[in-house]
Amino acid sequence: MIANLHPALTDAAASARAALADALASHTRAQLEAHDGIGADGTPTMHVDTLVEHRILEDLARHRVNVLSEEAGFLDHGSTCTVVLDPVDGSANAAAGVPLCALSAALAVDGEFRQALTCWLHTGDTWHATVDESCGPDGKPLRPSDATRLDAAAVSLLRPHIDKAAGHAWWEVAKTARRIRVLSCSTVDIALVASGAVDAFADPGSDTHRLVDLAAGVVFARTGGFVLRDLHDRPVTFTTDLTQRWSGIAAATGQLADELATTIHTALTQPPREPPCLSP
Amino acid sequence: MIANLHPALTDAAASARAALADALASHTRAQLEAHDGIGADGTPTMHVDTLVEHRILEDLARHRVNVLSEEAGFLDHGSTCTVVLDPVDGSANAAAGVPLCALSAALAVDGEFRQALTCWLHTGDTWHATVDESCGPDGKPLRPSDATRLDAAAVSLLRPHIDKAAGHAWWEVAKTARRIRVLSCSTVDIALVASGAVDAFADPGSDTHRLVDLAAGVVFARTGGFVLRDLHDRPVTFTTDLTQRWSGIAAATGQLADELATTIHTALTQPPREPPCLSP
Repeated sequence: MIANLHPALTDAAASARAALADALASHTRAQLEAHDGIGADGTPTMHVDTLVEHRILEDLARHRVNVLSEEAGFLDHGSTCTVVLDPVDGSANAAAGVPLCALSAALAVDGEFRQALTCWLHTGDTWHATVDESCGPDGKPLRPSDATRLDAAAVSLLRPHIDKAAGHAWWEVAKTARRIRVLSCSTVDIALVASGAVDAFADPGSDTHRLVDLAAGVVFARTGGFVLRDLHDRPVTFTTDLTQRWSGIAAATGQLADELATTIHTALTQPPREPPCLSP
Repeated sequence: MIANLHPALTDAAASARAALADALASHTRAQLEAHDGIGADGTPTMHVDTLVEHRILEDLARHRVNVLSEEAGFLDHGSTCTVVLDPVDGSANAAAGVPLCALSAALAVDGEFRQALTCWLHTGDTWHATVDESCGPDGKPLRPSDATRLDAAAVSLLRPHIDKAAGHAWWEVAKTARRIRVLSCSTVDIALVASGAVDAFADPGSDTHRLVDLAAGVVFARTGGFVLRDLHDRPVTFTTDLTQRWSGIAAATGQLADELATTIHTALTQPPREPPCLSP
């Protein structure tokens, strides 16, 4: 663990793990998947999100930092520090009992992302970083792979969006990459790029990512020496507007990020001449 | 833990966890992914497979059971009992450091599958069953969901095979199901169906599954009350021929298994009239 990590980040992770364990022990899958309304990010709030976020916000109160959280939105406590928070990334996994979900948090100081922590809630595996130092679950600094070519890369993707353009782009990446995974937990996907376990992760043009999905990745990428960018080069910077969207790309190297972006762009803008699922 | 589980199964899991931890601590990703030749199942053996299988076979020797293992093939010790074993299901995940891989083992007595155990190696989460009893990681009996319709189901799939027919079938299932995951670990996918965390898992027609991928699932399905079948209705029964292949379907209910099989069959046999990735 890095020495000078803000305790709000580690406290948020501990609260999330405890809250999720309690939620799973006392609720059915249907109860945890039920919708409690629309969150600040403009998407439905699952009951599991409500339960975990509520506990975290209670526990963070004593730190007197601002909080920007997926469901609650921006809670301004007059601090220079804001914790940008996804209490349960992978809510559908968490609610169902698929043990792939994470708390992810980034600390913005005067609007600059300076620290981050992603904690895989089922195991406690934690990736964290400041601007100077990083640390993976093995206690060693984050070290991405050196993959530069998509056809040699193991790539994680968001689950396919079955609309015309983004679905076609999804398939084009799947067709080209050496290996594809769909874990349904973007912040763990990005953490695995940071660790070198996968070579890249992408939302192939569906504009699904919100700031809370990417904020920790911005810090990991800068400190760990990999690329975190948007498909359309929109800057991933601090904002309190959680309705903003990106198509995030995390990649071990700039070359790999560029090839992914080009592959996706081409698929989004050029309809295929033959059925794409059927071309070799 | 069920009382009368054969100790060869639990010993195999303990050996695999220790061996994998040692392998990850002392080897690079490239070393663990390197191919050591062709295994008894006819596919390349990754070095991580060699390391873990070797340790398990050493530790199982004292039980004097026969062993049918992915790489070593059939080791006949003249017993009525055979442990059918995948030492590391999800080898690519294991070697890369993506923490999704499992030991999976089934005990065949006089050629009948009677006990099974799948252990997620990273966490120790264990699913196990005899013909009478079953137990998930939470200590409770296996309890699949009651999902009957594909459009309401969360489905895990093998990663897409980019050939014409199986690729098209993959996309047809992805297009219809409520949610898709690709975890790249069939035995955990089947265990999650057994637990009710996902509703179904399928190889959509690529005939990738070997006996070691499905054997534990046969026992879990019978005891847990869900369906484990082959797409083409080939019986999944004990054989020492590891080159045999299936397209396994695990589903919470018979209706869901039938709808999955029909969807895949239709896609395999009827070429689409329009680009399948582009149809809404």
